[in-house]
Amino acid sequence: MRATLIHGPGDIRSEHVPDPELVDDGDAIVRVVAACVCGSDLWPYRGDKSDTEPERIGHEFVGIVEQVGNAVSALTVGDFVVAPFVYSDGTCAHCRNGVNTSCVAGGFWGKPDGDGRLIDGGQGEQVRVPFADQTLVATPGEPPAAMVPALLGLSDVMGTGHHAAMAAGVRAGGSAVVVGDGAVGLCGVLAARRLGAERIIAMSRHAPRQEVARAFGATDIVEARGDDGVKAVMDLTDGIGADSVLECVGTGGSMQQAIASTRPGGHVGYVGVPHDVVLPIGTMFGNNVSVGGGVAPVRAYLAELMAEVWEKRLDPSPVFDLELPLDRVAEAYAAMDERRAIKSLLWA
Amino acid sequence: MRATLIHGPGDIRSEHVPDPELVDDGDAIVRVVAACVCGSDLWPYRGDKSDTEPERIGHEFVGIVEQVGNAVSALTVGDFVVAPFVYSDGTCAHCRNGVNTSCVAGGFWGKPDGDGRLIDGGQGEQVRVPFADQTLVATPGEPPAAMVPALLGLSDVMGTGHHAAMAAGVRAGGSAVVVGDGAVGLCGVLAARRLGAERIIAMSRHAPRQEVARAFGATDIVEARGDDGVKAVMDLTDGIGADSVLECVGTGGSMQQAIASTRPGGHVGYVGVPHDVVLPIGTMFGNNVSVGGGVAPVRAYLAELMAEVWEKRLDPSPVFDLELPLDRVAEAYAAMDERRAIKSLLWA
Repeated sequence: MRATLIHGPGDIRSEHVPDPELVDDGDAIVRVVAACVCGSDLWPYRGDKSDTEPERIGHEFVGIVEQVGNAVSALTVGDFVVAPFVYSDGTCAHCRNGVNTSCVAGGFWGKPDGDGRLIDGGQGEQVRVPFADQTLVATPGEPPAAMVPALLGLSDVMGTGHHAAMAAGVRAGGSAVVVGDGAVGLCGVLAARRLGAERIIAMSRHAPRQEVARAFGATDIVEARGDDGVKAVMDLTDGIGADSVLECVGTGGSMQQAIASTRPGGHVGYVGVPHDVVLPIGTMFGNNVSVGGGVAPVRAYLAELMAEVWEKRLDPSPVFDLELPLDRVAEAYAAMDERRAIKSLLWA
Repeated sequence: MRATLIHGPGDIRSEHVPDPELVDDGDAIVRVVAACVCGSDLWPYRGDKSDTEPERIGHEFVGIVEQVGNAVSALTVGDFVVAPFVYSDGTCAHCRNGVNTSCVAGGFWGKPDGDGRLIDGGQGEQVRVPFADQTLVATPGEPPAAMVPALLGLSDVMGTGHHAAMAAGVRAGGSAVVVGDGAVGLCGVLAARRLGAERIIAMSRHAPRQEVARAFGATDIVEARGDDGVKAVMDLTDGIGADSVLECVGTGGSMQQAIASTRPGGHVGYVGVPHDVVLPIGTMFGNNVSVGGGVAPVRAYLAELMAEVWEKRLDPSPVFDLELPLDRVAEAYAAMDERRAIKSLLWA
């Protein structure tokens, strides 16, 4: 089959690799229908990659169940499924606590599992899925083609934006700021609206992203950053700051922006993989600003969000503004790296 | 009147100062019945004091209303009142959000207010209380003398322990770890029990404090610290970590201990004034451990907790294990500094 490998900074290739086979009784083989490129895939693409060996890459995909192991009971060959961006056993204490990303037996796509056996990446034609019954969530029936991008959004970005909103304590009638206008930040806007925030301030200086943010429910756009950005948020919130701030970037500057924009007693929910983030404990303490979130356990939210996508009440698909066939994955990365695309979808 | 001043590290004096007078219409003059020494008073006592001028000190007191300004309506001369450790106007957005410690017009006892007028410290015979109607909470009637220490505990430590428990998301049936066996940590144990935690692990290596912790509801005591302490908590929680961890010290080591003892998806509630605390953002992110809390808005909890003290269902008074007359305040500090006392009460 074809799969995507990263050979080094800026070096993404679509290559022929062995087809996956069932290994454990709980495995399923999924034929990928669509995958996509994540903002976090850009970190190794931009040079934050320590391994010297080529590695499979991609952690977001939807597809059709093609084979199932003997122990698989919840899924049937032919099911359309959404894969969350980590696999998990669904039964350990952490999974039961809704933190599937900390599953004792789980892991990331494209990496070896605990026994050193490769788990396929998501940007390929097929994926062997461990703990298939627990990892995958099937749609109620075959989705129309037009719904596939929205379902693919549940694999990571929509669930991650929702996690930021939950961690930030977004409530009906409250105010929210979203720092970051990537696909996750935009989904954070959508999640905040879904949770009933009355005022949603999106921080963005890119017209096409501002447009998506407004379509997703942003009531205000702030282009300024740093102290000017904080001042703009303060002006919009009567000098109080926002109840909830969603930090969807992961840099020191974005976290600083987030914390300074939060009202005393408010909450920052962060989902951007932290790079050079130093938390200002003094400000946090003095203002009672909490910081929560982390790697989003999207599996825990999948059924709830999928039901709304299925009923066409939730649609994160506008974050995909570039669609390419899987073998043109290198172009998909380049377009995101150069900010020509918000998020690239790959048809397998 | 007599009041306590700190002249420098280790130099606490009881001195004669001018009696306070009503200044604003919302002021009250309170005759102090009892005050106490806080763990945070030990920071300047131990040398963390930048000012060179002698300063009033003390921020916890209960007493009798002696005079009221023209605009005071909720209080009457003769009322027995508990003062939270900051004063606040009760009407600004932050107060309405329950974060009285961030009140735009509020401040700390013993410091000048926004107009440069001295607000008396709590370790004195009388205190001018700004925004008296909003700042003070009166008991339903004259309390018996034996109840005064429990009421005094509401001024800071019980409300602060409760804030840690709230920020740590303590829930009925959950597990909690309390880092710190000072008066606040011990009150954190009591608060966790009050909120229904089933398992409460107190980290303490001092027998008299362990005894109070057990009386307050601790189900387990861990004496070990650092990696060994974390291992002990893991052993007690089936390798999962605690749902809620109350950090009641404020050092880098105690925060590290707290975060490492929290289960994935769990919450650290911290109330120790941070000194050299560096938050491990990578661990927090990977494990979805949130960190919340800060300077405790005890005013917001006062009525609720007072009702239970009044009905003798809540009693934090065992944290006071030394009682002295106000003019022997220097001994009260020394005993706490040398860890001969958990918390010193001063009868005015």
